[in-house]
Amino acid sequence: MKNSAVLLLSCPDQKGLVAAIANFLLTYNANILHADQHQDAENRLFLMRVEWDLEGFSLPLESFAAAFAPIAAKHQMNWKLSESGRKPRMAILVSKFDHCLADLLYRYQSGELHCEIPIILSNHEDTRWLADTYRVPFQYIAVHKDAKEEAERTQMAILHREQIDFIVLARYMQVLSPAFIQHFENRIINIHHSFLPAFHGAKPYHRAFERGVKLIGATSHYVTEVLDDGPIIEQDVSRISHRDSLDDLIRKGADLEKIVLSRAVRWHIDNRVLVYANKTVVFD
Amino acid sequence: MKNSAVLLLSCPDQKGLVAAIANFLLTYNANILHADQHQDAENRLFLMRVEWDLEGFSLPLESFAAAFAPIAAKHQMNWKLSESGRKPRMAILVSKFDHCLADLLYRYQSGELHCEIPIILSNHEDTRWLADTYRVPFQYIAVHKDAKEEAERTQMAILHREQIDFIVLARYMQVLSPAFIQHFENRIINIHHSFLPAFHGAKPYHRAFERGVKLIGATSHYVTEVLDDGPIIEQDVSRISHRDSLDDLIRKGADLEKIVLSRAVRWHIDNRVLVYANKTVVFD
Amino acid sequence: MKNSAVLLLSCPDQKGLVAAIANFLLTYNANILHADQHQDAENRLFLMRVEWDLEGFSLPLESFAAAFAPIAAKHQMNWKLSESGRKPRMAILVSKFDHCLADLLYRYQSGELHCEIPIILSNHEDTRWLADTYRVPFQYIAVHKDAKEEAERTQMAILHREQIDFIVLARYMQVLSPAFIQHFENRIINIHHSFLPAFHGAKPYHRAFERGVKLIGATSHYVTEVLDDGPIIEQDVSRISHRDSLDDLIRKGADLEKIVLSRAVRWHIDNRVLVYANKTVVFD
Amino acid sequence: MKNSAVLLLSCPDQKGLVAAIANFLLTYNANILHADQHQDAENRLFLMRVEWDLEGFSLPLESFAAAFAPIAAKHQMNWKLSESGRKPRMAILVSKFDHCLADLLYRYQSGELHCEIPIILSNHEDTRWLADTYRVPFQYIAVHKDAKEEAERTQMAILHREQIDFIVLARYMQVLSPAFIQHFENRIINIHHSFLPAFHGAKPYHRAFERGVKLIGATSHYVTEVLDDGPIIEQDVSRISHRDSLDDLIRKGADLEKIVLSRAVRWHIDNRVLVYANKTVVFD
Repeated sequence: MKNSAVLLLSCPDQKGLVAAIANFLLTYNANILHADQHQDAENRLFLMRVEWDLEGFSLPLESFAAAFAPIAAKHQMNWKLSESGRKPRMAILVSKFDHCLADLLYRYQSGELHCEIPIILSNHEDTRWLADTYRVPFQYIAVHKDAKEEAERTQMAILHREQIDFIVLARYMQVLSPAFIQHFENRIINIHHSFLPAFHGAKPYHRAFERGVKLIGATSHYVTEVLDDGPIIEQDVSRISHRDSLDDLIRKGADLEKIVLSRAVRWHIDNRVLVYANKTVVFD
Repeated sequence: MKNSAVLLLSCPDQKGLVAAIANFLLTYNANILHADQHQDAENRLFLMRVEWDLEGFSLPLESFAAAFAPIAAKHQMNWKLSESGRKPRMAILVSKFDHCLADLLYRYQSGELHCEIPIILSNHEDTRWLADTYRVPFQYIAVHKDAKEEAERTQMAILHREQIDFIVLARYMQVLSPAFIQHFENRIINIHHSFLPAFHGAKPYHRAFERGVKLIGATSHYVTEVLDDGPIIEQDVSRISHRDSLDDLIRKGADLEKIVLSRAVRWHIDNRVLVYANKTVVFD
Repeated sequence: MKNSAVLLLSCPDQKGLVAAIANFLLTYNANILHADQHQDAENRLFLMRVEWDLEGFSLPLESFAAAFAPIAAKHQMNWKLSESGRKPRMAILVSKFDHCLADLLYRYQSGELHCEIPIILSNHEDTRWLADTYRVPFQYIAVHKDAKEEAERTQMAILHREQIDFIVLARYMQVLSPAFIQHFENRIINIHHSFLPAFHGAKPYHRAFERGVKLIGATSHYVTEVLDDGPIIEQDVSRISHRDSLDDLIRKGADLEKIVLSRAVRWHIDNRVLVYANKTVVFD
Repeated sequence: MKNSAVLLLSCPDQKGLVAAIANFLLTYNANILHADQHQDAENRLFLMRVEWDLEGFSLPLESFAAAFAPIAAKHQMNWKLSESGRKPRMAILVSKFDHCLADLLYRYQSGELHCEIPIILSNHEDTRWLADTYRVPFQYIAVHKDAKEEAERTQMAILHREQIDFIVLARYMQVLSPAFIQHFENRIINIHHSFLPAFHGAKPYHRAFERGVKLIGATSHYVTEVLDDGPIIEQDVSRISHRDSLDDLIRKGADLEKIVLSRAVRWHIDNRVLVYANKTVVFD
């Protein structure tokens, strides 16, 4: 495992930005491993991801903010520093469907997802066996129609206690409150079982079947207060035909959901996703 | 070129249908080349496409209807017989964008599309050079905002004169009247530049760009009175990323549109498409 | 779960085959659920899959062979009858890589794979935990370089004892003997981690990386005596770029392998695969 | 059309490269539009593409080489400067199949391919009509089995006279001599009708059909002296099934060939392709 730092930043576009950042890093003897930038011409925005080796880097990371502050201020940068050696803490919220959960846990166990999973929260007991298999703590929290706030308070307390960095909704079938969503802005990843914006809302496979589409899709996105409208991280599709029944759509869709969600989660963990203007840049 | 007949039919599902049709054809010594069937369990419908060699078939096609009538009546069949030796007559309606037209004409000229193209109609002069290149008659018909009916009357007269079997809208930017559409029910093929039902209506690439989707699509469908809502014949998608500008989307989309439209047109010509319940079965 | 029968057959192409089979089934009051046929023009072969409801079918399946024999003899048919109510017995052979095994077991447990798994055999202990999780018997059989025959004898004895119908090699890293392969002709399904015939043999990802291909693939095929040369059941690919390291190829490839292998296994279980001329027809 | 410059470079990897280049450009007041870099860890190579606006850039391009020389020397850089305002001069070599030629000419005429096409050379007269349609000079040069050298001398003379920058083999069915290939090193783009390295050599569709693959492909690559072995620029695939005859493979493949070749040509024109170690980096 390499020991590296990742800087994600965005700021108004102008001359000299690449030089400014490259020179700053060179001052401290950084060996740049990857650098990728993007200009959004319409919004006149500069977006960048730069990763460098911490071996030989002469600036302690705890001093980074202070040292970088003048450059950041001068160019009005939003920035975020991450250390690849530190595993982010991910919580999973799940209901009854378990295919995405099983997939995430297998990838976690095999080392593909470089994170900690301190807790799985569910409004059903159905997936406890999977949590047990992979030795991840599982907590059942009932979500009653007329006591949703209470359930959310309980969830929130646990998420705080476990110092959760971000949340994955692995086919979690409850709508979260605006307050909850704002608290974890751009840190809640959902998987929707359609090619958004087609079939947002409920029962997308049923509606895809009725409409007679020739491809079905899945979309992973950050959750915002508007349902199924947040910044899209990843999408993919599978071909179907008249030979596919509704059950076939659901089965083929489950494979899509797993793949699409796991890609989005991995990119988030690797600090590859930058959100702006309700879109994402995924630095691959 | 094989000389074959194709029977497309649909009827309420029941026992003995395959045997009834196979026996009927065998009576006249048919050599079945392909037979494909589909049951729509929900609608309790039986749908079939059967193609047989006309060499050695002892029933003259002009007598087919009379001979087949008892079976069709008994099973309440909707059916349509086509002869592969007869090329259907296709009209193309086009505006300024010429990529789909260029693609269709090239495929027509190379023999991939087994049809006649007696006429191209356009509300602009821009694509006349392409019609000239491929020696296809081209007629300019102005479509003025306040004289649409008149324009449609002129179009209709030409389509009748040319005994047109079906119409392809190769990025034709005018809305057709309900009367026109009903006259050519399930015989007008449109290409929409999005993955329907996402981004139906105008400017789909602009809206896809704004929404930040990770795939763009194209959809070919039969035209019905409800805009972009007719039975879907074919769809496909291409991957895009933040590196793609709106112009890139339009360019990548153009390639999709050509491919998707040409597939739909070829399947229609080959009598592979059966419409029911605002969907299609494509017998491939 | 529907209670149906599936007949897979192939024979020299000739007139009247569809009628002969449809009439035979109708004699016993069969309700045909699906019928799909294919003509291989080059080999003048007729191939068919027909599935019918057993409810109301008046011929007991144990008498099928005798009743069908005259038709089969007349048309020189190879045929195989399966009952959807009977779950085939599948053995899995695996080495150290566990992603395909984990995927198969999850699909088995969730009911997607309609089979029994009486035994997992491995030349390593690494995957026992997965077998335990899904409560499937696991047996370790050492395969020493100079005692391969002995190992195979042990394997064969267990496979017989468990009345295994077919075998899945879920990244099993040992070459099987010709005798073993012949015994299970067209009943051993392998997953190869390349787009065959590209990169047959060892270390395909390394060689794909070196060659600089822009797509990687996976291939599921029946095992024959010639390495990686058997009839292909399913293939798929993923896009890669220069940004992908060898490790990325291996990770992306693992997702492909799981999907491709599970499709092939499901189609085999559903009696959709017919082998001829070292190819397959997959009746979907 | 933006007026920009593109620098493509590769050199041994070391610290400070990004800073060195960014600072050099900033000295002359460059506004960087895109910058993309890649490290090949195995070969310890640094590869970069940087594009900047020429408006306001204070270094005349004719003085670039002299000014950049010290940096290039210090870091042992291979580099190439291109001006987006200058259209490269492309020759097309073609035989009888005309689908790739028709596609390239349409894209050229529509402005998608930002190049000049001073000449089309062919060993057959079949495609002259297409050249005429798009008003591109066409020259027939017979290639006799026992006079290949003479034919190549004629071709070479014309390519020199027309100051050709690079050559596209649009299904050109003659093997070029090593001398010819070396003269245009990494400047001859071929389209091969298979997913290389599968089915290199002759008749790939026939062999794909025989082998029973479930996907067919196309590969665009730079030509080297070893047949079908040069650096791959782009590849793509299409799904096929047993329903597809050899003719269907050829038809579906033709669509692939057009798309894959046109992508490769566009990337080459846009100076996005860097060759090293018999591979390419495509900076998209």
